[in-house]
Amino acid sequence: MAKISVGVFGATGMVGQTIVQLLDNHPWFEVTELAASENSAGKSYEDVMRMRWSAGSEIPEYARGMIVKEAGTTPDCNLVLSALDSKVAGPIEEGLAKAGYAVSSNSRNHRMFDDVPLLIPEINANHINLIKKQQKERGWEGFIVTDPNCSAMQLCIALKPLQDAFGLESVMITTMQALSGAGYPGVPSMDIMDNVIPFIGDEEEKLQSEPLKILGSFAKDRIRPANFKISAQCNRVAVRHGHMETVNVKLSRKADEDKIIKAFESFKPLKEMGLPSAPERPIVYMRNENRPQPKLDANIENGMASVVGRLRKCSILDYKFIVLGHNLVRGAAGAAILNAELLKAKGYVG
Amino acid sequence: MAKISVGVFGATGMVGQTIVQLLDNHPWFEVTELAASENSAGKSYEDVMRMRWSAGSEIPEYARGMIVKEAGTTPDCNLVLSALDSKVAGPIEEGLAKAGYAVSSNSRNHRMFDDVPLLIPEINANHINLIKKQQKERGWEGFIVTDPNCSAMQLCIALKPLQDAFGLESVMITTMQALSGAGYPGVPSMDIMDNVIPFIGDEEEKLQSEPLKILGSFAKDRIRPANFKISAQCNRVAVRHGHMETVNVKLSRKADEDKIIKAFESFKPLKEMGLPSAPERPIVYMRNENRPQPKLDANIENGMASVVGRLRKCSILDYKFIVLGHNLVRGAAGAAILNAELLKAKGYVG
Amino acid sequence: MAKISVGVFGATGMVGQTIVQLLDNHPWFEVTELAASENSAGKSYEDVMRMRWSAGSEIPEYARGMIVKEAGTTPDCNLVLSALDSKVAGPIEEGLAKAGYAVSSNSRNHRMFDDVPLLIPEINANHINLIKKQQKERGWEGFIVTDPNCSAMQLCIALKPLQDAFGLESVMITTMQALSGAGYPGVPSMDIMDNVIPFIGDEEEKLQSEPLKILGSFAKDRIRPANFKISAQCNRVAVRHGHMETVNVKLSRKADEDKIIKAFESFKPLKEMGLPSAPERPIVYMRNENRPQPKLDANIENGMASVVGRLRKCSILDYKFIVLGHNLVRGAAGAAILNAELLKAKGYVG
Amino acid sequence: MAKISVGVFGATGMVGQTIVQLLDNHPWFEVTELAASENSAGKSYEDVMRMRWSAGSEIPEYARGMIVKEAGTTPDCNLVLSALDSKVAGPIEEGLAKAGYAVSSNSRNHRMFDDVPLLIPEINANHINLIKKQQKERGWEGFIVTDPNCSAMQLCIALKPLQDAFGLESVMITTMQALSGAGYPGVPSMDIMDNVIPFIGDEEEKLQSEPLKILGSFAKDRIRPANFKISAQCNRVAVRHGHMETVNVKLSRKADEDKIIKAFESFKPLKEMGLPSAPERPIVYMRNENRPQPKLDANIENGMASVVGRLRKCSILDYKFIVLGHNLVRGAAGAAILNAELLKAKGYVG
Repeated sequence: MAKISVGVFGATGMVGQTIVQLLDNHPWFEVTELAASENSAGKSYEDVMRMRWSAGSEIPEYARGMIVKEAGTTPDCNLVLSALDSKVAGPIEEGLAKAGYAVSSNSRNHRMFDDVPLLIPEINANHINLIKKQQKERGWEGFIVTDPNCSAMQLCIALKPLQDAFGLESVMITTMQALSGAGYPGVPSMDIMDNVIPFIGDEEEKLQSEPLKILGSFAKDRIRPANFKISAQCNRVAVRHGHMETVNVKLSRKADEDKIIKAFESFKPLKEMGLPSAPERPIVYMRNENRPQPKLDANIENGMASVVGRLRKCSILDYKFIVLGHNLVRGAAGAAILNAELLKAKGYVG
Repeated sequence: MAKISVGVFGATGMVGQTIVQLLDNHPWFEVTELAASENSAGKSYEDVMRMRWSAGSEIPEYARGMIVKEAGTTPDCNLVLSALDSKVAGPIEEGLAKAGYAVSSNSRNHRMFDDVPLLIPEINANHINLIKKQQKERGWEGFIVTDPNCSAMQLCIALKPLQDAFGLESVMITTMQALSGAGYPGVPSMDIMDNVIPFIGDEEEKLQSEPLKILGSFAKDRIRPANFKISAQCNRVAVRHGHMETVNVKLSRKADEDKIIKAFESFKPLKEMGLPSAPERPIVYMRNENRPQPKLDANIENGMASVVGRLRKCSILDYKFIVLGHNLVRGAAGAAILNAELLKAKGYVG
Repeated sequence: MAKISVGVFGATGMVGQTIVQLLDNHPWFEVTELAASENSAGKSYEDVMRMRWSAGSEIPEYARGMIVKEAGTTPDCNLVLSALDSKVAGPIEEGLAKAGYAVSSNSRNHRMFDDVPLLIPEINANHINLIKKQQKERGWEGFIVTDPNCSAMQLCIALKPLQDAFGLESVMITTMQALSGAGYPGVPSMDIMDNVIPFIGDEEEKLQSEPLKILGSFAKDRIRPANFKISAQCNRVAVRHGHMETVNVKLSRKADEDKIIKAFESFKPLKEMGLPSAPERPIVYMRNENRPQPKLDANIENGMASVVGRLRKCSILDYKFIVLGHNLVRGAAGAAILNAELLKAKGYVG
Repeated sequence: MAKISVGVFGATGMVGQTIVQLLDNHPWFEVTELAASENSAGKSYEDVMRMRWSAGSEIPEYARGMIVKEAGTTPDCNLVLSALDSKVAGPIEEGLAKAGYAVSSNSRNHRMFDDVPLLIPEINANHINLIKKQQKERGWEGFIVTDPNCSAMQLCIALKPLQDAFGLESVMITTMQALSGAGYPGVPSMDIMDNVIPFIGDEEEKLQSEPLKILGSFAKDRIRPANFKISAQCNRVAVRHGHMETVNVKLSRKADEDKIIKAFESFKPLKEMGLPSAPERPIVYMRNENRPQPKLDANIENGMASVVGRLRKCSILDYKFIVLGHNLVRGAAGAAILNAELLKAKGYVG
């Protein structure tokens, strides 16, 4: 089987380089185009990234000599993985879709559009059906699918089995988010060393809206949002990778701890699909009272798990627990790749 | 006026050395005894602390040459400020009280005893009346008063004006606590560098119980605990000083943001009392959307303020906000000193 | 005595705000102008700095309401303290000098000019005489004096008594430099968290050249550079404030440890001059084997000392030791102020 | 081929757990005994390590259920990898050697003994011949070989090709050492957060003596130490893994930069031996001006390389450069394993 040709857009940023890293030796995809801003265009990827590469010791060999192109709408590939800055992602991604490309985007721009799937394959693979509507109404040959904000991703995965088994009424969250979530150069060291910053621009808004679409139901040709309440407080902490969140939930139906943990651990909806980047365990529940921790646990399941721990009763809502996810992998680069794999498995590309 | 002679117990620990630092040039108190474990006894304070002093560049001159005593029940002073380890504080503090000493303790041992005030002068100065009961029932000449756990302190100060003006139904908290709260050697660097630890032993229990006593009412000869609900999740972060907490509250009566901020800012119950360590503003409300932050704001009002910010509506409870306090000062050393000043002002020592 | 009116140029940067902080209640100087780039011009200092102030909890009251001006050559003051970015400092400082202003600059631009003093009052106060040459040759009414790079400052202070007493042959240095030395936003947190960066642009060149001018002799109307050898390796570490340096020296004449320590401790050349910002002890020698440390010791003498420790024999050169200085205070803001105080004491301004 | 049975002594410490991790699926060795202090004895390795495991997300499956034994002299294995604390390693390792075991030790106790090889296979594989003398003189059936201190390891590897090609006269070093080098609990976070500690007990002594033995020559039945001079200054920095060192060297013979880099890069003395843990490139020379860095580069060659960069002329000695090594892998656990592999390849075990 010939591999599907892939373009990585925004290939020089922190998410983009993680995509480049994760696609090294990918069984289905082959990178044929690396695109970025005009500053980087015309140089080899190695030249551009020499001082900025931080996704491992060494740039994958396949990418080193590739010449970076300026991000445009006629790339040499069939599928685009977009990690473009939200300032420019809008028109470029739409231009690509119009020109017939399949776009799996990590940018925020189209996430909340009525006809754009905000996809997490483990949760709402059927939202992919919005693509038809999107193509019909817009007259596009290609299409756009998106993945959620890095603080919403692992939360939604942990909420899905609770929603299915017990129903959700309220979800209260405090995040402790990693530095790589802010991109590069991102957070100045003088701001965060020995400090906590209790504010991340637009983050609480995203975290309070995206989960309702993600956990919503597909009916006819549209998403009916889930109707539980969300309240979030977002903080930046001095951690490189791995967003931690304390969560308090009110459920619709009675639940006990054993059943909840069982719901977490038996949640394996993609088991039979064979998507190469899908984690064997989308939710890993840790029983040690002081886990999960970002440094020790963000890389479980190659960074693709939602790692949960410390489930206990809450005297105000019903239960509280901790959830951790690798913001650059499960929350961004790996999410865009997994969505692309779903597109391929469902016949939308390839 | 002659100064009151003070013994600092547990003088070599992180809280103890902060007391030693804060008592430098205190207008009412004079340190006449420094007590610690037998390991340190018999040496000069300077010799003991040379490698461990971290409360400033230099040990205050008054303390350097003082010979450290083993903590016992016949110190050379009238008032004891105790920062003893909870493993040994119980019998020593009781022995001191029995022997006629006034004890202002930062140790957890007696906090929740029915006849021991858990004092925050701005909140419950009248709880001091428990001393009479304590002395009568136990036959003690002296007495013990305590200050709360370092994560409860700044929270309770911020809650008090809300309780008074609007009533409290529920308080949900996620803490991001500083390293100095764990004492010394405390948290190993390998555990916390580039990490968050979502667990602190016994901390959630303390934070869920102490505020109810602190914000309770004194009736006849006992404390009737406040009856709102508290649910806490406690985390350790890589910050030296300053506990941050996200707080969500449900109030009994309608409130708007302006009134709440006004309640915070007009909260000055000690205004006329002239206690030397009392902050001018027990609550400082910061209007910048990204404040307070531990590195920038923990030292406001010499570390004695509860610093609040980011008040906004909560879709699940009523309001949410951030609170910050200097755990070693307002949350420990400064609290024990302020309680001692209250004792003096009320005629219990001196 | 009326105070001398001072303009702080580059007032919004990390060095500039430290100058603003240090000049609060200065006995000789009064800030009458705050100047910065046109982005900040026209706004109150408080408005500009709200999200960036990091030199303490609160902006000094005197500065809050002042309207920031665009840095130009007709400020409302007699003396300019310049912390301008080196990209723009050149023409502005020269324009000011031409227009008759006294300029005490922290920018690198004019440091190595033949007719510009590179001043450290404790070392080379007589280099101030270059001003006459500078004014004569350039036809300026005003003049420029400069202070050294933040990694050269505390080193030179520690070297001076060695040079005087024993002569210097070779000086080898490895620096571990703090983040605030890179300004703001400066070093991205993703670059330095849990890391060391063994490279700082141009730093080794500056550290290998400036000390020779600083420790050179003034003869007739020019500086004859000192002629020892310097070799430096410069590193960035995850420390907020305080540059640490390991130093190995070869001396011209025999020395023993006691004599060297005595030379350090008796070095008080400004003792009688009454400069308000001069430290009582320009060199503090610490005897504990694990000191100095940036966190504990950078603020000794209000951040104006060169803190030395761990003197011991070196088997290759003669001796080795550690030196620490507060890069923002002694190495930048405080240095510019101390130079201005010297100018006033010597009659060059006021 | 049956695997060789291995006991890991000191299996619960930071080095010991790294050995346990690295031996997962080792082609030659099979762990049959895990030994530690009596505190841990009798429990499963998983139970003991639950709260302390930090060498990856999860304990290797093979080790989880193994019952930890108290470290003694009759373990169930042929080969012992010892990461015992130096307080107890002396008599235990000697007892093991006497009882016929092959001991590859990472403890410092026997490193400088005349009849004990201080082995780095790339440098001095022939020192292994000391074993015969050791056995004969002491009457042991077994024997002890040791690996060097974690700050000496990567330095010596980088020095070896310089010594061979140009001769060494003087080596000056400043280290910036990682936290994991201090073991666990090791350095308190309050000591090192936002700080540098310019002192590590006994470290300079080890770094100034071990390289002379390692780089010495084997003649007849003893080691003649190398005779260059070493002077070291050792510092602890806030980095988890990876010791950085600035190095200045004086060579015996003329060298130019190209030749030195070629000497580094062509240094592959183990090429043909097939030791499973031997890095393909024992020295990796990085050409980027800001590399190597511990966070980005300590894991090159699975943590077994000595990573060198920034070679440039030194005005005092001849050349200066940076060297980095993973202190837990190349500098400890991996070193003990590689030495054991050499023993097997040379027929001393198996």
